[in-house]
Amino acid sequence: MSQAPVPDIIIGRLPLYLRALSSMASEGKQITSSQELGARLGISSAQIRKDLSQFGEFGKQGTGYNISFLIEQLRRILHVDKVWDVVLIGAGDLGHAIANYRGFLDRGFQIVTVYDNDPDKIGKEAGNFIVQDTINMIEEIRSKGIQVAMLAVPASEAQTIADRLVEAGIKAILSYAPTSLKVPSDVRIQYIDPVLHLQRMTYYTP
Amino acid sequence: MSQAPVPDIIIGRLPLYLRALSSMASEGKQITSSQELGARLGISSAQIRKDLSQFGEFGKQGTGYNISFLIEQLRRILHVDKVWDVVLIGAGDLGHAIANYRGFLDRGFQIVTVYDNDPDKIGKEAGNFIVQDTINMIEEIRSKGIQVAMLAVPASEAQTIADRLVEAGIKAILSYAPTSLKVPSDVRIQYIDPVLHLQRMTYYTP
Repeated sequence: MSQAPVPDIIIGRLPLYLRALSSMASEGKQITSSQELGARLGISSAQIRKDLSQFGEFGKQGTGYNISFLIEQLRRILHVDKVWDVVLIGAGDLGHAIANYRGFLDRGFQIVTVYDNDPDKIGKEAGNFIVQDTINMIEEIRSKGIQVAMLAVPASEAQTIADRLVEAGIKAILSYAPTSLKVPSDVRIQYIDPVLHLQRMTYYTP
Repeated sequence: MSQAPVPDIIIGRLPLYLRALSSMASEGKQITSSQELGARLGISSAQIRKDLSQFGEFGKQGTGYNISFLIEQLRRILHVDKVWDVVLIGAGDLGHAIANYRGFLDRGFQIVTVYDNDPDKIGKEAGNFIVQDTINMIEEIRSKGIQVAMLAVPASEAQTIADRLVEAGIKAILSYAPTSLKVPSDVRIQYIDPVLHLQRMTYYTP
């Protein structure tokens, strides 16, 4: 049976649902409702029911959602019922913060290598890693079959590095560089740029 | 004349346009088109023309947009034709990376104080700042009339700090804590959580 793809805007909300449900589970809750979940997230309960209904029936009318079951289903849908190996490019201040961040592993990701092209950084520590030279990056990523990369390099270097990651077989790039990058259509890219968020808020602040 | 508010999804794209235009200007370009801008951003030219038309006439049919004029207009619309003072709460690894980041000032923001509640961090350096105790934070923010805050604290502390920021008069919060926060309706909040972006991409990666 062929189905229309689920809109990306809905896919973008699933990780939010998963995060909120995991938080509820860690509080010891076992059952929730679209109303309760919506109140936590500032999303309408109707939206949540509609989003989840794209993927099947996860709750019974009147009895709510079993939290651990829904977590399991969302993990499966988002492909984080496994742990993805991730390479991090860039061992500056931000790279160090990312390398030290403890919140990846229980949500489906683990950094396996930190790369930089700066001779002053190569061989030094970043978190639990020794920073590796980008010179062998393409071959290493390809031989390990790694598909996910985080990019914490200056904007001026980001496109060159992204091109090499694509060549290495990377299929998902999260870029912290404040610039838009070109990647082939079979590679996903997402961006984190704090100023975009700040400017989106100051519009509303007189 | 009363006007319907511009949808937030459009407001969210304006900082992207501003960033791409600034990048074009730094390359020495003077004129661009919605086609060229769209190609850089992966957004259709029709969408860009429609978005900009919400705010007036910025280009003439057939002659394109004057880049520096459009930058000036977007800065005015987004209220970044001034520099906003920003407080940063949290002087851990991420706080240090944010405090050291050089990309805020020319885009409308400057960090003026870094706070933490950890006695081991207070009084130490973070970027060009000496970390201040959060104990006086509310009074200091209020007396300086600061409206923008960045939050780089653990998820478990984020709501408590956010409540105090709201009490201090903060109107815009950018939170790096991986949790949803409750703020009054007159306060804007945006989130940065890398795992949400990663999970949104692994959905598409078999």
